[in-house]
Amino acid sequence: MSVGEHLFPNMPALAGMRLGTAAAAIKYRDRKDILLIELNADATTAAVFTKNAFAAAPVLVGREHLATSQGKIRYLLINSGNANACTGDRGRADAIASCQHIAAAHDISPNQVLPFSTGVVGELLNMEKIRAGTDAAIRDLGTSDWLAAEKAIMTTDTRPKGVTKTIEINGTAVTINGIAKGSGMIKPNMATMLAYVATDAAIDAETLQPLLNAANQRSFNRIVIDGDTSTNDALVLMATGKSATIGPEGSDSYSLFATALTELCESLACEVVRDGEGATKFVTVEVNGGVNADECLKVAYAVAQSPLIKTALFASDPNWGRIVVAIGYAGVDGLNPERVNVFLDQVRIVHNGGRDAQYEEAMGQEVMNQDAFTIRIELNRGECSETVWTTDFSHDYVTINAEYRT
Amino acid sequence: MSVGEHLFPNMPALAGMRLGTAAAAIKYRDRKDILLIELNADATTAAVFTKNAFAAAPVLVGREHLATSQGKIRYLLINSGNANACTGDRGRADAIASCQHIAAAHDISPNQVLPFSTGVVGELLNMEKIRAGTDAAIRDLGTSDWLAAEKAIMTTDTRPKGVTKTIEINGTAVTINGIAKGSGMIKPNMATMLAYVATDAAIDAETLQPLLNAANQRSFNRIVIDGDTSTNDALVLMATGKSATIGPEGSDSYSLFATALTELCESLACEVVRDGEGATKFVTVEVNGGVNADECLKVAYAVAQSPLIKTALFASDPNWGRIVVAIGYAGVDGLNPERVNVFLDQVRIVHNGGRDAQYEEAMGQEVMNQDAFTIRIELNRGECSETVWTTDFSHDYVTINAEYRT
Repeated sequence: MSVGEHLFPNMPALAGMRLGTAAAAIKYRDRKDILLIELNADATTAAVFTKNAFAAAPVLVGREHLATSQGKIRYLLINSGNANACTGDRGRADAIASCQHIAAAHDISPNQVLPFSTGVVGELLNMEKIRAGTDAAIRDLGTSDWLAAEKAIMTTDTRPKGVTKTIEINGTAVTINGIAKGSGMIKPNMATMLAYVATDAAIDAETLQPLLNAANQRSFNRIVIDGDTSTNDALVLMATGKSATIGPEGSDSYSLFATALTELCESLACEVVRDGEGATKFVTVEVNGGVNADECLKVAYAVAQSPLIKTALFASDPNWGRIVVAIGYAGVDGLNPERVNVFLDQVRIVHNGGRDAQYEEAMGQEVMNQDAFTIRIELNRGECSETVWTTDFSHDYVTINAEYRT
Repeated sequence: MSVGEHLFPNMPALAGMRLGTAAAAIKYRDRKDILLIELNADATTAAVFTKNAFAAAPVLVGREHLATSQGKIRYLLINSGNANACTGDRGRADAIASCQHIAAAHDISPNQVLPFSTGVVGELLNMEKIRAGTDAAIRDLGTSDWLAAEKAIMTTDTRPKGVTKTIEINGTAVTINGIAKGSGMIKPNMATMLAYVATDAAIDAETLQPLLNAANQRSFNRIVIDGDTSTNDALVLMATGKSATIGPEGSDSYSLFATALTELCESLACEVVRDGEGATKFVTVEVNGGVNADECLKVAYAVAQSPLIKTALFASDPNWGRIVVAIGYAGVDGLNPERVNVFLDQVRIVHNGGRDAQYEEAMGQEVMNQDAFTIRIELNRGECSETVWTTDFSHDYVTINAEYRT
């Protein structure tokens, strides 16, 4: 299941990078499961990784390589089907060996390669297959088959997810392309989610990381499918340096680029939610009038993660009682229920903490019958707002997760 | 669905209290939906209420009455079918009026009556039905039909839940009876759960409350079904004063009684979990070796509330990867994954953060095929332990909550 339609866009080639894919039969048959991204020598790379204490071997190795190479990454190697997580010293050695294999073939340092894995936890990689797949992906390196790239990294995803955007900076066209995989184990602070965003702009490594952090904070860190955070999540931003130069924070070019990047990441993150496991609804949870971001997010996540609300969403049931219950246990100190209002799109269902006197169930029902809508909560105690995106809990969610071995 | 068998015990009558039930057709047809508990003038009462900011009218009124009467409660009136929650000033007036109705009939003060409601949120009580039902329950007052009492307060429960225990204190038999309703919206800090525990012991009000708090902390505050906390939860302890006297904290009688009360509350709380909405598994999550209770509980709840783990439990899938992932995102500062071990009953599935070398899937499968088992997690960084109880997430959970209007 997935919500609405998403057509994978026609993604333009980006000067300074090439993509290659291969079928290594790691877990899946008859499909690509290796993606290799090649960056030119001027490119810079930044990344955000999972905060899970059981971060997988490729995450640990990737963090180190990014730091020691100071963002001068030349290759990203991604495999699907096996997460190389909870695999101990051997898993770590395998992740490093994958990087060495590519480095040896290209006369670069192994720390200029970032490894990524997604799939089953706790099984060792078959390194013979990884090496053969890598070699095939190297041979396949071409300019711009982003759809093939996306398909190679998908696991339980039901459709490829990509977004592209072109803006003009100082009279020069700057393109940003992004792809993402992930449809379960999605929650704030990343998910079983891999996302690769690339631009032809020139951005130095010190500027790239804060740009990525800010965009991540308002996009991938604001989505919920089931509240689980995986061992392998990563979001990468690559800049090939072939187009306009983005200045430091505070410059016009920075602002323009930051806005476009955040919008692209939001679109991509929302595509992940729309393709959530078993999802039949795409729901925006907007909390306004909080004293600070923390309390807005507490309320938003309480609502976005409540199994009782998520099953009501699946049933298209405008059950405002469950929403109010979740707001009530979110843990906002001193919350005055009598100032709380709740809207479904433009329909006010709760006024001053109780059912709105003008509200009739048919009005809420009409909103909930759509496959995408907004639950808006007004706390009326401050000026802060936050937004998160979530899905419903359906029978298919249970089926998928009772049958699929993560 | 519910896990295992639970036979409602033969509950002995308690001197000093009477129970009455009635069918008031509040929501349900052809069943009792009003319970009235009458206590003698010497009885003392303590209670723990929901922490939800949207606490229902009867909770607000009950808290006040308990405080102003200093625990000298004479009647408890409970209705099922309508929670009288999010009903504003009118709901509050209705809860008070219910108490006044009983007080007027018995020449006591209204604050010696505690009101309780459970059922649909956001609808006003039909006070005509409540008054008629209350009058019928008064006429029905008899000594000890605990099964009828329990049935009158059930909502989505599939079976009545009761526990009884008799201990000897200073040569005198002391009995404790408890009943509970609730099978969804269950989570730490109470649930859509009402539990009434009564004893014939004599316990002054100042001693009763800490006894209840301590027992609650290790029982009803340690269970998870779906992570939602309702507006109406309450746990009440009544002591009729007709048997042995329980001394103050530190006395032998206190210790004996406290142990028995905690055990009874644990049994009752676990019965609530076993009857969890759609539950097919009853799972104990035990976390050992934490530095403090807080971090043990973080880990235990992360595991007990993870939809990915709960769907794997439903599938009887010994998916240790998902358990490790949840431990990893629980938020324990400085957790060293390489010291973490995980057991399914006696089978070690994770050793030093990775799959146990001796572990074979058939061993885990055998444990998971049972309808009750323990997930034991050893953090190996301290001396603290905590235990919580949870269930799986099944198709029936989705069906029940997509179709039932809370």
